[in-house]
Amino acid sequence: MRDIAALKTALEGLKIEDNPALVKQKSRDFFWYSPVLKRELDHVTADLVVSPRSEAEILRVLETCYRHDVPVTVRGTGTGNYGQAMPLAGGVVMNLAEMNRVLKISPGRLVAEPGAILHDIDVAARASSGQEMRMHPSTLKTASIGGFIGGGSGGVGSIRWGGLRDIGNVLRLKVATMEERPRLLELDGWDLQKVCHAYGTNGVITEVEIPLTAAYDWIDVIVGFDSFERAAAYGDDIGNRDGLLLKLVSPIAAPIPQDYFLRHRRFIPDGRHICLVMVAAHALGPLLAVTRRLGGEVLFRSDTAEDTKGLPPAYELSWNHTTLRGLRVDPGITYLQVLYPYPNHLDLVSRVHAHFGDEVLAHLEFVRFDGNITCFGLPIVRFTTEERLDEIMRIHEDMGCVIFNPHRYTLEEGGMKQTDEVQLAFKREADPKGLLNPGKMIGWEKPDFDFGSRRNYLFPGLQPAS
Amino acid sequence: MRDIAALKTALEGLKIEDNPALVKQKSRDFFWYSPVLKRELDHVTADLVVSPRSEAEILRVLETCYRHDVPVTVRGTGTGNYGQAMPLAGGVVMNLAEMNRVLKISPGRLVAEPGAILHDIDVAARASSGQEMRMHPSTLKTASIGGFIGGGSGGVGSIRWGGLRDIGNVLRLKVATMEERPRLLELDGWDLQKVCHAYGTNGVITEVEIPLTAAYDWIDVIVGFDSFERAAAYGDDIGNRDGLLLKLVSPIAAPIPQDYFLRHRRFIPDGRHICLVMVAAHALGPLLAVTRRLGGEVLFRSDTAEDTKGLPPAYELSWNHTTLRGLRVDPGITYLQVLYPYPNHLDLVSRVHAHFGDEVLAHLEFVRFDGNITCFGLPIVRFTTEERLDEIMRIHEDMGCVIFNPHRYTLEEGGMKQTDEVQLAFKREADPKGLLNPGKMIGWEKPDFDFGSRRNYLFPGLQPAS
Ligand SMILES: Cc1cc2nc3c(=O)[nH]c(=O)nc-3n(C[C@H](O)[C@H](O)[C@H](O)COP(=O)(O)OP(=O)(O)OC[C@H]3O[C@@H](n4cnc5c(N)ncnc54)[C@H](O)[C@@H]3O)c2cc1C
Ligand SMILES: Cc1cc2nc3c(=O)[nH]c(=O)nc-3n(C[C@H](O)[C@H](O)[C@H](O)COP(=O)(O)OP(=O)(O)OC[C@H]3O[C@@H](n4cnc5c(N)ncnc54)[C@H](O)[C@@H]3O)c2cc1C
Repeated sequence: MRDIAALKTALEGLKIEDNPALVKQKSRDFFWYSPVLKRELDHVTADLVVSPRSEAEILRVLETCYRHDVPVTVRGTGTGNYGQAMPLAGGVVMNLAEMNRVLKISPGRLVAEPGAILHDIDVAARASSGQEMRMHPSTLKTASIGGFIGGGSGGVGSIRWGGLRDIGNVLRLKVATMEERPRLLELDGWDLQKVCHAYGTNGVITEVEIPLTAAYDWIDVIVGFDSFERAAAYGDDIGNRDGLLLKLVSPIAAPIPQDYFLRHRRFIPDGRHICLVMVAAHALGPLLAVTRRLGGEVLFRSDTAEDTKGLPPAYELSWNHTTLRGLRVDPGITYLQVLYPYPNHLDLVSRVHAHFGDEVLAHLEFVRFDGNITCFGLPIVRFTTEERLDEIMRIHEDMGCVIFNPHRYTLEEGGMKQTDEVQLAFKREADPKGLLNPGKMIGWEKPDFDFGSRRNYLFPGLQPAS
Repeated sequence: MRDIAALKTALEGLKIEDNPALVKQKSRDFFWYSPVLKRELDHVTADLVVSPRSEAEILRVLETCYRHDVPVTVRGTGTGNYGQAMPLAGGVVMNLAEMNRVLKISPGRLVAEPGAILHDIDVAARASSGQEMRMHPSTLKTASIGGFIGGGSGGVGSIRWGGLRDIGNVLRLKVATMEERPRLLELDGWDLQKVCHAYGTNGVITEVEIPLTAAYDWIDVIVGFDSFERAAAYGDDIGNRDGLLLKLVSPIAAPIPQDYFLRHRRFIPDGRHICLVMVAAHALGPLLAVTRRLGGEVLFRSDTAEDTKGLPPAYELSWNHTTLRGLRVDPGITYLQVLYPYPNHLDLVSRVHAHFGDEVLAHLEFVRFDGNITCFGLPIVRFTTEERLDEIMRIHEDMGCVIFNPHRYTLEEGGMKQTDEVQLAFKREADPKGLLNPGKMIGWEKPDFDFGSRRNYLFPGLQPAS
């Protein structure tokens, strides 16, 4: 039995929350995006929330919890949508919201505490030096940099810079281990792979250094087409034009914009398929020239729109925000995460969507991936049963897509269906008791799990629903 | 007969040079790079050099020469290496060296007069706003922006931004026509194709607007390999890593660096094949991590080298500067310009170089081309005869390469072996008498020329050697 009372005493002086309602609130993320995760994780809650205000306090939490055998699940701002930040086995949620300072900005580089909000980082970088992050999730305004690196993958800007996984897109991390005497390690180069996108299962990021790029004025453009194929081909075309400085290229099939983009729908005629684009102001003219040649109709431009009051930026219609806007209108939908591999991505997109018809509505995000322009899909699925959802994913895979299953809370099932041996080895070293975010790395919990079985992993330590 | 004396009178008040030695000097460019062009064009000279100091003076030169039926060949700084700026039929060389002001710098944009030296543009952009040009030829320090747009194609920075031909890499041009009443036209979007890389055959660029990007500190790195294949594969690998901010990636086969890079050769052991890299300071760590993994040996780093005095920057070892350094040591060499089409470029490079052995030494320049990373080649050729040179090019083509023949002075033969119909149509409009840089556009001079014949076009108006 865990002695939470003793732990509390040992943590005296730190900022602690144990009001069950508030603890539960800080034990949740956007897991409810998935009907599957909603069923499995809705009851999950921690025992305590601790909010360290310094690196020293982080180390004290880790050391104390280690001694008391209490799990620690790190939390940025809890916008992850696979239950990444949920304490499956209870224990402590370590909330990093208080550690949110931007520490240093120089040409091409920024150092921050892990809880810094991405939008604050961009504002600071722009104000001080005309720079900004290379990429951010569509949750720019709410997510933390530590959470993005620990649980995210890329997003707005990936059309130019690839993903977080690409070497160079994170420069350095300071990481605390959970040992008898927690250590602070400085990681760079390939070593960053140990903890990037590891869901905080093998270390706590206490400081980040990321690259910056030039902050230009970005203009939102919505381009309309009479078929989704043409919208997708347009996205592919502009993504491949090396002289166009773009930050977002998102083809979205009708009737998603008409039904779900409540503030923008007045710009988007019925039946029109769209491509959302963010383009640097000085690349707008060239983009419009290409758009005309490809027969796209400019439905909206943020630089000339008469009334943009109340309109969210285009990136808040993109990536997982597309699904979020759908869920607000129709809670009966869900979504997938698909990679259509280069070079047959456009053909694959066509075939997949012809196969499913209205059951799966297309939403693509063009990105650079290993040097090529290709697209991820975050299609909207009209949810019926979990069995059918699995079947839809299987059909995608059979047709040649790669699925990153957003209805699973483990690293492996949501990712490449195999354990990242580098991350596992680092967990052995940095978290010998397995107390960091338990249940998220199958390779640690159940090394002989058979990913080929297509059976869902269920963490035995998952706290029972009461 | 042209009445040059009458023309001189009509041009009174303008800055005019008619000293034959000085005129001849300003009638030459780097045509002598090619043994073929050297033979054909060595005697070429203008009658007069006129150096306008304003747009109004440019218009006056054009109007006056039109009236007197005198050809006008525009000159930036004469670093073109296909005789682009040479007045084949004599007449006036319009030297734009006096029109060299940077007019305006704003986020992402720069406006300049055509004669502005590229290096001056970069210095001004960096000083005022931490920006720089997206790309420049290796002749950064000597070439003009008008000459780059009129006669160049890309270079340092093309690994990130593609070429000058890519929409977005030139934003706007102001162009003077050569008519009874010369007009000033503003071109943007697709219209830029009318005059970009048209050798000044259909208009005189009087003002340019180009995009800027962030100016970071660039570090030169020379990486060594024990085979050229590995150097080429390394270039391809790093070029495809979306998180690495690079500006130059140039694999060069031994013994080019050892024999020709006189100031750097002390860093480069015998037999070592190299890759020149320019990397942003904040991407150096990640680049070195990749380099280690790929087995590259770092032979030189400009940020840690003990003594960089007298060392040229890496970009002055690259692109056409590689050949220049070779020519200085061994005037018996020449070179080719090759495109190895994606995605089989590495294989093609291997096969081509295995075929030729020491007769053709490999030099690649990785670039973004239509969205993919591929490579141009500027191989060094041990010159024997013009027949053999043609044969070497034919073998390249037969193996699947595209050749941009640098031993021809026409747009078509140096390019895609067909007339650019857009440029030809614009010439009809903007230069009805055909007085702008005569002899460079076959489509104008001899519309029925058979490019399939593999016969060399000889401009009938080429002034006879005296
Ligand atoms: C509407 C919506 C849109 C989204 N769009 C995108 C998108 O475009 N791209 C994208 O990649 N993701 C996206 N996401 C997912 C999520 O927003 C991002 O991954 C986000 O960056 C997470 O940040 P956070 O601070 O909320 O992290 P949290 O949810 O708090 O944590 C995420 C994971 O990181 C771990 N973690 C947090 N801080 C640390 C730390 N300091 N050290 C170690 N581990 C840590 C947590 O334990 C957890 O496993 C989206 C989610 C929503 C709901
Ligand atoms: C060592 C060396 C390295 C080089 N490296 C590169 C390289 O990396 N990339 C590359 O693209 N080129 C390269 N070049 C070719 C050349 O340097 C570039 O094309 C350069 O930009 C030409 O500029 P310039 O001012 O010297 O032009 P010039 O040689 O004076 O003119 C070039 C052409 O443009 C026309 N022109 C000039 N000004 C105008 C104007 N205002 N309006 C209309 N037409 C005009 C001229 O008539 C001529 O046809 C290299 C050449 C050398 C010798």
